Amino acid sequence: MRALLISILTCSTLAHAQEAGPIPAGELAPIRAAVGRIHDDVLTRRETYKTLGDLCRVAPKRLSGSPGAAAAVEWARQTMIKLGLEKVHLEPCVVPHWTRGKVEVLKVLAPAEATGSLKILALGGSVPTPKAGLSAEVIAVTSFEELTRRAAEAKGKIVLFNRPFSATELSTFKGYGGAVGQRVRGASAAAQVGAVAAIVRSMTPNLDDVPHTGGMRYAPGVAKVPTAAVSTRGAERIAAWLKRGPVRLHLRLDCQTHADEKSFNVVGELTGRTLPDQILVVGGHLDAWDVGQGAHDCGAGCAQSMVALATLKRLGLRPRRTIRCVLFMNEENGLAGGRAYAKDHAKELPNHVLALESDRGGFTPRGFTTNANPAATAILRQLAGLLKSGGDRVIPGYGGADISPMKGAGVVQLGYLPDSQRYFDLHHTRIDTFDKVHWRELELGTAAMASVLYGVAELKQTLPRNPKKKAEKKAEKKAEKKQPGDGKAK
Amino acid sequence: MRALLISILTCSTLAHAQEAGPIPAGELAPIRAAVGRIHDDVLTRRETYKTLGDLCRVAPKRLSGSPGAAAAVEWARQTMIKLGLEKVHLEPCVVPHWTRGKVEVLKVLAPAEATGSLKILALGGSVPTPKAGLSAEVIAVTSFEELTRRAAEAKGKIVLFNRPFSATELSTFKGYGGAVGQRVRGASAAAQVGAVAAIVRSMTPNLDDVPHTGGMRYAPGVAKVPTAAVSTRGAERIAAWLKRGPVRLHLRLDCQTHADEKSFNVVGELTGRTLPDQILVVGGHLDAWDVGQGAHDCGAGCAQSMVALATLKRLGLRPRRTIRCVLFMNEENGLAGGRAYAKDHAKELPNHVLALESDRGGFTPRGFTTNANPAATAILRQLAGLLKSGGDRVIPGYGGADISPMKGAGVVQLGYLPDSQRYFDLHHTRIDTFDKVHWRELELGTAAMASVLYGVAELKQTLPRNPKKKAEKKAEKKAEKKQPGDGKAK
Repeated sequence: MRALLISILTCSTLAHAQEAGPIPAGELAPIRAAVGRIHDDVLTRRETYKTLGDLCRVAPKRLSGSPGAAAAVEWARQTMIKLGLEKVHLEPCVVPHWTRGKVEVLKVLAPAEATGSLKILALGGSVPTPKAGLSAEVIAVTSFEELTRRAAEAKGKIVLFNRPFSATELSTFKGYGGAVGQRVRGASAAAQVGAVAAIVRSMTPNLDDVPHTGGMRYAPGVAKVPTAAVSTRGAERIAAWLKRGPVRLHLRLDCQTHADEKSFNVVGELTGRTLPDQILVVGGHLDAWDVGQGAHDCGAGCAQSMVALATLKRLGLRPRRTIRCVLFMNEENGLAGGRAYAKDHAKELPNHVLALESDRGGFTPRGFTTNANPAATAILRQLAGLLKSGGDRVIPGYGGADISPMKGAGVVQLGYLPDSQRYFDLHHTRIDTFDKVHWRELELGTAAMASVLYGVAELKQTLPRNPKKKAEKKAEKKAEKKQPGDGKAK
Repeated sequence: MRALLISILTCSTLAHAQEAGPIPAGELAPIRAAVGRIHDDVLTRRETYKTLGDLCRVAPKRLSGSPGAAAAVEWARQTMIKLGLEKVHLEPCVVPHWTRGKVEVLKVLAPAEATGSLKILALGGSVPTPKAGLSAEVIAVTSFEELTRRAAEAKGKIVLFNRPFSATELSTFKGYGGAVGQRVRGASAAAQVGAVAAIVRSMTPNLDDVPHTGGMRYAPGVAKVPTAAVSTRGAERIAAWLKRGPVRLHLRLDCQTHADEKSFNVVGELTGRTLPDQILVVGGHLDAWDVGQGAHDCGAGCAQSMVALATLKRLGLRPRRTIRCVLFMNEENGLAGGRAYAKDHAKELPNHVLALESDRGGFTPRGFTTNANPAATAILRQLAGLLKSGGDRVIPGYGGADISPMKGAGVVQLGYLPDSQRYFDLHHTRIDTFDKVHWRELELGTAAMASVLYGVAELKQTLPRNPKKKAEKKAEKKAEKKQPGDGKAK
């Protein structure tokens, strides 16, 4: 592509789809001007990228309960202060503490011509194998139904859950949703038919040698068997060997679950100009799986949330309402931080206007997903229509795990939605590192988030709340009673 | 981000924005079904990615006139046949032949503490320096106006054109458009004020050590001075030194312009079922700058164009009209292929219904840009609204350089528009290599292109043509008279 000067695209037209709506033109105009300033400042300063780089250097390994998580908490506290956030403080929560250990081996014992090892990662929460490991034949299934049907055959074996991640869904999250049940529930399903371990095909549409870890849960009253993720190429190899004859594997894991630890959400804010008690929450989760640097998951969302507030402050854009940045602890294996926030701020939740989470990676903006009622959706659409970042679509969907405990109280949930094509290249892997983050893609997300937050926080009209849902409140209470690390699909 | 099973996004809603329109529901339904099949087939087979990988291995260096370009032509011919394209043949054109040579040196002579070399690439078409190189003081400017104002100061010097590429434009192409004039016209502007060479800041919003080459043109009647691109970090260093005192550089280039060569466009088609004389063209350019592999620019567009047709054929989706794949030669430094096609097919152009070019990289689809009249735009929007690839926006804009010579005849121009955030990381550089291409992003483009092509080719109604424009026709004629490599901003 060369530069025909006469032919430059004016893609900015992409970003101005939905400016008509319930916000009066006179009120919208200064917000539009602010959005332009935010965009230019964020793209020029590139502070999100620097902030994320810092986090990835200072606390690359920050699974809940680890020394790295404690380092991340202290880093976030200091960084919020440095960035000018106000009322910076820590809010306690109690988190599970699981360690991967040093041994993760999946050796091929048979077929004889295929000796060697396959690349695996223990799933978070897995029990270890016996010290000497365990050896067994393999049975591969692509559904829980198949496992039930072949229960007799599975006894004493290692079950390989090998249902592929659909590659044809436009949203890779949808492909993930169709496959991840194997990871979450595979171990107990295997144990229930007398199997000795569960190996799960990694959650990615790619065919490669990168194993993806992630959370799992043991069903109550079922024997706990060890479980790990094998790379997609490893899973394909096992399946191919099985077509020719028996496959025998040796699995060794020394992961451990320790006593719960005390940890913290890190909180700072930009106090509202005239309505400081009305609160918008923005955040991501500060914990990350222990193998890479958690750069996209969820360092990106944390850096974006902090820098969104810092940008507004630096530009003198202090809105009517308070915007509170909450970096949640323990999203990956327990949601203790998200639950603690909703519980400890229960009295304030009726004044929580919006909760925005960025937890889908730092890629180019596509828009936002929301559970907002129609009136609030119309306002969010109109504000998103002002964006210069291209992420101007507001569609029905999920907000985010950490903010979900506020849902029952009627707090509108908003999830930042970036392009999802590359996310499952690196999600929960050793390669989720800072070099996979593109500065422009990341900063455009910050600009989009800061702009919508500013708009909602500055509007004369308070964003209409969602109705409280009894069923949701009940479910939430029930979930809170469960022990951390045991109550959610991770 | 973990997998809350209850919270999976249904982003497919993103893709169904604009299904209402001039195409009757009964006619649209089978097209919608075809679009679904195309999407699933392309994402499952991943043939574009394999095809592009082949091209990058077989003919990574394929600047017009080079042996690599000849290899690319033969590879494309064979690949079209292998993919099942019909009437595969070559169409001749005459192209310039410029070689980079082996010496590209920009040494720092002063300031004394900064000795060493800066990373440069000669611009395509540059004359060489004297064999021993040339040494001179540097003057840095950020506009042609500044150069004119400081003309006396520039005499005998090397001019550094150092206007930055705007980072705040959402479309990086817009940032490019604001900066690239320096590259295209810098050498002659420098010569006109008596300078001995022109160095241009590389065309990227990034600050890094990667120089970006590209085309330039010498103004008629002006002395030809050598010219090269320096990395953005190199340009920043020179500018910083200049603040403290004189900077003296030594430039050595041994690039050469040789006699014109014969080359070819590579053409194949899927012959129409009932209206074979009505033609849709789809293509990219087969030539590429000689430094990387031309993976995104424009191997991606070539592979997408070929595989789009192959997919339709394999799925039994032969539409009413003919879809012709044209891989154009010499887009980067002359446009000989694009001009030859328009000239040699002048009689057929009144039956050319649409020309679609993919020459903005193989990134995630955002939509299409077009110069279509309102009636045609409405049809294109309705078809794009069916896409499962997310690239469902049709906005006013440019089609593509290679197809632009058909514009005067009223052929509707359509440009495939992917996300542009990463394009200028690698455009015209050594790092435009296959490993920078993401298979899903690339294949989604193929699916989008194949779908819209199929829809237009299958519709009962012929896409309304644009009016012929006298001015455009005149300009085109004038352009054709100029010698290759000299008539366009490259």
